[in-house]
Amino acid sequence: MNAQQLKQLLNDVKDGRLAIEDAMAELKKLPFEDMGFAHLDTHRELRNGYPEVIYCAGKTTDQVAAIVKRMLELDYSNILATRANSDVARALQALTPNVEYSTTARIAVINRKPLPQPAGTIAVVTGGTSDMPVAEEAAITAEIMGNNVKRIYDVGVAGLHRLLSHLDEIMSANVVIAVAGMEGALASVVGGLVDKPVIAVPTSVGYGANFHGLAALLSMLNSCASGVAVVNIDNGFGAGYMASMINHM
Amino acid sequence: MNAQQLKQLLNDVKDGRLAIEDAMAELKKLPFEDMGFAHLDTHRELRNGYPEVIYCAGKTTDQVAAIVKRMLELDYSNILATRANSDVARALQALTPNVEYSTTARIAVINRKPLPQPAGTIAVVTGGTSDMPVAEEAAITAEIMGNNVKRIYDVGVAGLHRLLSHLDEIMSANVVIAVAGMEGALASVVGGLVDKPVIAVPTSVGYGANFHGLAALLSMLNSCASGVAVVNIDNGFGAGYMASMINHM
Amino acid sequence: MNAQQLKQLLNDVKDGRLAIEDAMAELKKLPFEDMGFAHLDTHRELRNGYPEVIYCAGKTTDQVAAIVKRMLELDYSNILATRANSDVARALQALTPNVEYSTTARIAVINRKPLPQPAGTIAVVTGGTSDMPVAEEAAITAEIMGNNVKRIYDVGVAGLHRLLSHLDEIMSANVVIAVAGMEGALASVVGGLVDKPVIAVPTSVGYGANFHGLAALLSMLNSCASGVAVVNIDNGFGAGYMASMINHM
Amino acid sequence: MNAQQLKQLLNDVKDGRLAIEDAMAELKKLPFEDMGFAHLDTHRELRNGYPEVIYCAGKTTDQVAAIVKRMLELDYSNILATRANSDVARALQALTPNVEYSTTARIAVINRKPLPQPAGTIAVVTGGTSDMPVAEEAAITAEIMGNNVKRIYDVGVAGLHRLLSHLDEIMSANVVIAVAGMEGALASVVGGLVDKPVIAVPTSVGYGANFHGLAALLSMLNSCASGVAVVNIDNGFGAGYMASMINHM
Amino acid sequence: MNAQQLKQLLNDVKDGRLAIEDAMAELKKLPFEDMGFAHLDTHRELRNGYPEVIYCAGKTTDQVAAIVKRMLELDYSNILATRANSDVARALQALTPNVEYSTTARIAVINRKPLPQPAGTIAVVTGGTSDMPVAEEAAITAEIMGNNVKRIYDVGVAGLHRLLSHLDEIMSANVVIAVAGMEGALASVVGGLVDKPVIAVPTSVGYGANFHGLAALLSMLNSCASGVAVVNIDNGFGAGYMASMINHM
Amino acid sequence: MNAQQLKQLLNDVKDGRLAIEDAMAELKKLPFEDMGFAHLDTHRELRNGYPEVIYCAGKTTDQVAAIVKRMLELDYSNILATRANSDVARALQALTPNVEYSTTARIAVINRKPLPQPAGTIAVVTGGTSDMPVAEEAAITAEIMGNNVKRIYDVGVAGLHRLLSHLDEIMSANVVIAVAGMEGALASVVGGLVDKPVIAVPTSVGYGANFHGLAALLSMLNSCASGVAVVNIDNGFGAGYMASMINHM
Amino acid sequence: MNAQQLKQLLNDVKDGRLAIEDAMAELKKLPFEDMGFAHLDTHRELRNGYPEVIYCAGKTTDQVAAIVKRMLELDYSNILATRANSDVARALQALTPNVEYSTTARIAVINRKPLPQPAGTIAVVTGGTSDMPVAEEAAITAEIMGNNVKRIYDVGVAGLHRLLSHLDEIMSANVVIAVAGMEGALASVVGGLVDKPVIAVPTSVGYGANFHGLAALLSMLNSCASGVAVVNIDNGFGAGYMASMINHM
Amino acid sequence: MNAQQLKQLLNDVKDGRLAIEDAMAELKKLPFEDMGFAHLDTHRELRNGYPEVIYCAGKTTDQVAAIVKRMLELDYSNILATRANSDVARALQALTPNVEYSTTARIAVINRKPLPQPAGTIAVVTGGTSDMPVAEEAAITAEIMGNNVKRIYDVGVAGLHRLLSHLDEIMSANVVIAVAGMEGALASVVGGLVDKPVIAVPTSVGYGANFHGLAALLSMLNSCASGVAVVNIDNGFGAGYMASMINHM
Repeated sequence: MNAQQLKQLLNDVKDGRLAIEDAMAELKKLPFEDMGFAHLDTHRELRNGYPEVIYCAGKTTDQVAAIVKRMLELDYSNILATRANSDVARALQALTPNVEYSTTARIAVINRKPLPQPAGTIAVVTGGTSDMPVAEEAAITAEIMGNNVKRIYDVGVAGLHRLLSHLDEIMSANVVIAVAGMEGALASVVGGLVDKPVIAVPTSVGYGANFHGLAALLSMLNSCASGVAVVNIDNGFGAGYMASMINHM
Repeated sequence: MNAQQLKQLLNDVKDGRLAIEDAMAELKKLPFEDMGFAHLDTHRELRNGYPEVIYCAGKTTDQVAAIVKRMLELDYSNILATRANSDVARALQALTPNVEYSTTARIAVINRKPLPQPAGTIAVVTGGTSDMPVAEEAAITAEIMGNNVKRIYDVGVAGLHRLLSHLDEIMSANVVIAVAGMEGALASVVGGLVDKPVIAVPTSVGYGANFHGLAALLSMLNSCASGVAVVNIDNGFGAGYMASMINHM
Repeated sequence: MNAQQLKQLLNDVKDGRLAIEDAMAELKKLPFEDMGFAHLDTHRELRNGYPEVIYCAGKTTDQVAAIVKRMLELDYSNILATRANSDVARALQALTPNVEYSTTARIAVINRKPLPQPAGTIAVVTGGTSDMPVAEEAAITAEIMGNNVKRIYDVGVAGLHRLLSHLDEIMSANVVIAVAGMEGALASVVGGLVDKPVIAVPTSVGYGANFHGLAALLSMLNSCASGVAVVNIDNGFGAGYMASMINHM
Repeated sequence: MNAQQLKQLLNDVKDGRLAIEDAMAELKKLPFEDMGFAHLDTHRELRNGYPEVIYCAGKTTDQVAAIVKRMLELDYSNILATRANSDVARALQALTPNVEYSTTARIAVINRKPLPQPAGTIAVVTGGTSDMPVAEEAAITAEIMGNNVKRIYDVGVAGLHRLLSHLDEIMSANVVIAVAGMEGALASVVGGLVDKPVIAVPTSVGYGANFHGLAALLSMLNSCASGVAVVNIDNGFGAGYMASMINHM
Repeated sequence: MNAQQLKQLLNDVKDGRLAIEDAMAELKKLPFEDMGFAHLDTHRELRNGYPEVIYCAGKTTDQVAAIVKRMLELDYSNILATRANSDVARALQALTPNVEYSTTARIAVINRKPLPQPAGTIAVVTGGTSDMPVAEEAAITAEIMGNNVKRIYDVGVAGLHRLLSHLDEIMSANVVIAVAGMEGALASVVGGLVDKPVIAVPTSVGYGANFHGLAALLSMLNSCASGVAVVNIDNGFGAGYMASMINHM
Repeated sequence: MNAQQLKQLLNDVKDGRLAIEDAMAELKKLPFEDMGFAHLDTHRELRNGYPEVIYCAGKTTDQVAAIVKRMLELDYSNILATRANSDVARALQALTPNVEYSTTARIAVINRKPLPQPAGTIAVVTGGTSDMPVAEEAAITAEIMGNNVKRIYDVGVAGLHRLLSHLDEIMSANVVIAVAGMEGALASVVGGLVDKPVIAVPTSVGYGANFHGLAALLSMLNSCASGVAVVNIDNGFGAGYMASMINHM
Repeated sequence: MNAQQLKQLLNDVKDGRLAIEDAMAELKKLPFEDMGFAHLDTHRELRNGYPEVIYCAGKTTDQVAAIVKRMLELDYSNILATRANSDVARALQALTPNVEYSTTARIAVINRKPLPQPAGTIAVVTGGTSDMPVAEEAAITAEIMGNNVKRIYDVGVAGLHRLLSHLDEIMSANVVIAVAGMEGALASVVGGLVDKPVIAVPTSVGYGANFHGLAALLSMLNSCASGVAVVNIDNGFGAGYMASMINHM
Repeated sequence: MNAQQLKQLLNDVKDGRLAIEDAMAELKKLPFEDMGFAHLDTHRELRNGYPEVIYCAGKTTDQVAAIVKRMLELDYSNILATRANSDVARALQALTPNVEYSTTARIAVINRKPLPQPAGTIAVVTGGTSDMPVAEEAAITAEIMGNNVKRIYDVGVAGLHRLLSHLDEIMSANVVIAVAGMEGALASVVGGLVDKPVIAVPTSVGYGANFHGLAALLSMLNSCASGVAVVNIDNGFGAGYMASMINHM
């Protein structure tokens, strides 16, 4: 409820068009629906123009399906189910034919109203082939939020010439998502080469003293390059969302 | 050296306007100056339009002064010395009258050519008064890079009404920098309220199981709100730089 | 044995009503029963009025069943088996028809003498749907200990309006249990809104730099709000027990 | 603003007693005062009946003094300044004669209107003499919040008979605050002996693998006794506050 | 080879009873046998009077069997295979009928020449029933090394009276092995009660902030009681071995 | 492209033997091939004379097979696939008969052109039998890179005479690879005995406070012996590669 | 109070020689004295025959002096003040001429009745010269508790011949205390060489990835040698105490 | 004592040229001198041809001076005192005029017999100016051990062109020492560019989530480039020593 709506409501009270009890109810009414185990945010799509997102890990397949079913009834245009296994994908496909599922990225997308795309592109760059699941989560997230995405995979710093050969593509992007495991040096090198915001995503790719992504995470947080900010380990969705926000400015 | 310059150089070689040795030298010439203990990036200001930044921690006062002296000779317009103690500030003030020093933020600014400012503002929000040194580092960095900055301090989530009372100011900003120590919950709450990019800065404010900012860092990395990316603990400069990049897009 | 019983015993010795050997035996007799692999606390129910609790993890199904069998023989009224898998549940149901088992909370309850309930309620609040197993462990524990419990799930701080819409319910409770994974900011926000004791339960819900609940744990320990105390990660039972203690004061 | 006040306001609008602009201003007015570097919560004392608390670490002496000065002008009755060094204490004593300062606990107390005390007592128990600063912070906090406090110091579990000799005092308390460093076993032992809520405070007393209180913290979080909840390392204030909340129920 | 043997060897050389080449060979000969993947210490039983021990984790069943086969050919009397799964046990039982296997402790014992037992006993005390696998590893190790062992299980500090009722047994032991998970407070309490060496064994029993035994480990290392030394998490064998060494002094 | 090739190219341009467009293409041409999910480094074998290495963890079997298939088409002589499971091995064997697979080391080797071997040998020493998988990864890597390898296994410091009996072999090597889990003391002892470079490889062999190799890693990094450098936990490949580099100098 | 005393007391009650109130008082009387900030254990010297120990860290000089003063009045024979700075030493010397203070070990010893010494010796072995403060704390503690101590310093494993040259002395000891920082390998090597109990003391000597003794601690806990138990980092006192207990058996 | 010397000794015994007691003494004689607090390794210089090294941290100035004094009496040619403060430097300069002291590297060098230098050079590369103290420790160590050293400082990956402009110098070195703090990406980038062994030295330069060099350490251990091995944080000496060993092969 914005200031104008508030003024209107008070006017309605003053002029007797609205009973006090109704006004109080209105002031208390909140834009979501309680499903018992989950609160569905019924106004979110309106509020920020983005698709609704369901983080599936820790929810039962039935819970996810119930949430999506209600969203479809409420006529949500775009829905993103992240960390969705194939059971969840099948359950959603039983609800609507309109589901695309990426096995690599573990994302199910229900995209009924493609968003207009800004001119700028988002480059998703990875250190290795093993970082692809996280990179795809970022890329697909950015795409459903209405962005052109350029994928540049397996260009880690151990073979710097591979990265440099794609420099033009990377430098022409509006935002760069740098996805890397192991030592995560890609973020610093990319951050030093471009003058655009870099969203760094550490991945849990590696072993031993990698400690499930901690090495890459600390590396990226301590980047000696400016213009680098970091999201959680393996959080491709978060990076895609943030990059889209920036690209739409 | 861009593609056009490369073509010109090859043309010059072909047409005999440029000796092969000179062409080779040109191809090898790189845009910086070796000062023995430091490499001065002589083209950086041109390259990315930002001021030159010197991270003073771990450098002697003499080293910082020598670097700045050379920058002034090369006619740099804007210079930022971060983590500068008062000795460094005095040494710089001996070089040029044009130095502003913030004791709180430990930043010395030499600002000889103010940058044009975009319309959007950057909001710097802190959880507590003790987060001010980091917040000021972010705010001053953003200002010298040509941004309007709105400071909103001491609005931590323990008194949510304080934060909510500033909601209009925060929501009208283009980018929000959320600075908080202790449990760092501010980033999640702000991230949930606004639909603009949030740069989260954990601070080392706290004690005990805070572990010098680790609690706030982990909290911010795990934010349940989307659109939040994180920089290093106490890295006000990095947040200001990133926010400015986004605000200038 | 309290002071009065001790005095009586000494009087009995003095007056010859009790042989010295019997007195010594009495003084040594301790209120439990040694089952070889476990010590059954036969007076506990009397001592503190609470049900007996068996932590099943690390015990074989046979061990748990033997303990419960003996408790039933000793006519315990209320028994709580936590971290009980379905095998344990089946074994207990073979002992007595009086077993309720929650798959979500992994708790088996034998409740033969419902406890009187105080007027106050305990609110169990979660950040997300995935926190339900821990929240249910807390809620069921509190219920068997004789408390009215109000469940308010999936009201995390990323959508603050969801939490605020339940504020009346939360504020009217005597004690609040705040259950959250990821960054655990819920505890601070709830702690800042209510003036009742908040028992914070970090959960292991999350991934990456969550480090199996460490992020939420540190966040809750560093809460900038007063009136918050913390139990172990995923320790729903401990929170329910503590909240019940407070609610019965 | 509670429901009744809201109804009154709407009635005033309806009956023309209140202009819409004034109503809007009223609805936006929030109960605190912005001091630039700090937000003073002007209604807090009313809201929850507790003294106002200032956490001094990370604030300059001038900032603390300015905050207290304004509080005194607003006629606050009870003020608690924690982590206050002797400079701060002197600055406050220059503002009002009514300051008591504990060097051990680093707390400055301005107590102008003693609160009524409930019948129950709070026992503050420590493992060793070295835990006294934290224990005193807890005890003084509880006292200014209107509680009878019983101090029982240096009764660590290495000499169990010392603890057992005070058992009556401890068991007769309404709430127990267990303060211990090193291995923090005191919390478990006390938790097993009493049937009242135990607030455990790990301290940073110890060395080596104590890791500044981490050993005691983990120990207390994993207590095998029920009815124990934990606050941050060295957080005597938090324990005193929580215990007082419980004792006033 | 001790000093006397060395002198004899030199005398033999001097007197021509031993050729120089043979002497050199003798001086180089070392008391073990190289099996390619393992070095069998053929003199160890002689050297320290203890049974030979094989740590089975990380070895294939074939490797363990080959080692034991060779030991039996060399007529070892007593062999202990720790961390042995049931496959290993079956493989050893195929080699000799003389194998006792404990499923709980995962130890296979080949005991062909019982060692003489000293008068003193070793008490093995556990906090809970879940600590039994580690406790049994310790107890069986001590037994095969020739010690009387007294098992006292499930006497954790949350019910102090259970521990105190066994105090006579514990105090009459020569050495006490204290086995506990969760917060590991048992070691401190036992250490404070007895004046005999206490070998503390943290176990990985617990969850959440227990971090796989870290909580109990740190707790035991920081014990406020004197006379406590610690072995690795879950290292029942090490504790039994150490206790036996002490008991045989 | 080295300096001489660059000069030739410029000469060719000058003399009209090479069109400017061709020169530009040449200058931009980079020595690898983009396979979509991976970049194949087509010149690497030439550049550094070593076999091409594929790290299989995190890649699908199809991805590994496609990479190797292309390498074979490009006539690579020597290929090393590390962390390869038996599925990968079978897929490679379907491509060429020329595959040797080590189940222990999880390495598949395609060795079509044996490299000339330097005179010096590399000694691979392990603390225990359980360290063999990592040691074999190191040994096989060194062998395919053209080195004589001497394996000395199960000579940990708990039986120092075993290690000393192999001292001649170890001291005669050019480089020593010390592979050990548990406390990793082998690296320090070997480092103190030889005056050749020691590459230390911590393994994840151990349990409890070993924390998956952290204990051995820290131990090796803190070695009191000089001439020891460390690679990642379980990184047998890295150690073999580094040792080969040194041995070929 | 032992069983015989208890029987006597009961007999006295029965025969009227002891009033019931007196018996109750006797049963409640506990062997210590409450000094307000500390509990003085007045029977400890009797109970376990060891000197009384005061851990000075975190206590004020006045508190330590008051405790010792009271002990002297109670005629304690032997007192040990550990972690005592020179201020404490001077304060104790003002109380009695009978104080020996070691600057290296930071121990003040009041030794008025030398204890009889057993035949066996305790060897204190260090890796380096920098470990001396901890080693001396162990040695002096063992000496005041009535033991012959043999100091063997700076024989770390990087120069194994130094250690081996002292092997006779080490092997002839009853108990060995192994004190080492850095990688702490000394404990494993010594543990493998001797067949006597080894008490390992990690020290905080080192830098970088030593993490204040963590490397040595983990190393010692994971020792591949049997017969090694560990005390806290820098806990020389604990090691000396434990070794003395064992040596007196 | 090598095999030939052993044979000679035995021959001498056989032929009566050497008494048995003398032979025994000879066999026991070890090449060092016990100074009470330190063992001087009198044969080390001979054994491995390197200068003697004293790690000064944790030793008193008097201890260091006494060790060096004795070395000079024994006519050592080259001595290296690392982590030496200016007090130590002055004490050494009082012993011999032949001391060079580097304030930056905290190394005192007594170099009386320069070693012959191999043809190859060692390149010492740093990420920033703040890494100079560690880099200088490495460089000076390598120089006194007889190596040509090329210093290339402040060429971190944030400005990749700075590093690339020195590529020829780096690639022409025999061994590269890569010194970097913050995220330590330099090691991976250098490792990917050169085909020579890279010794990586993480430094403690940085702040926040750098955790005193942990970020750079983990980064370097997880390097995606082959041919990189790591020494302890800030261990410039270790890197210089290792690099020299390799360069002399």
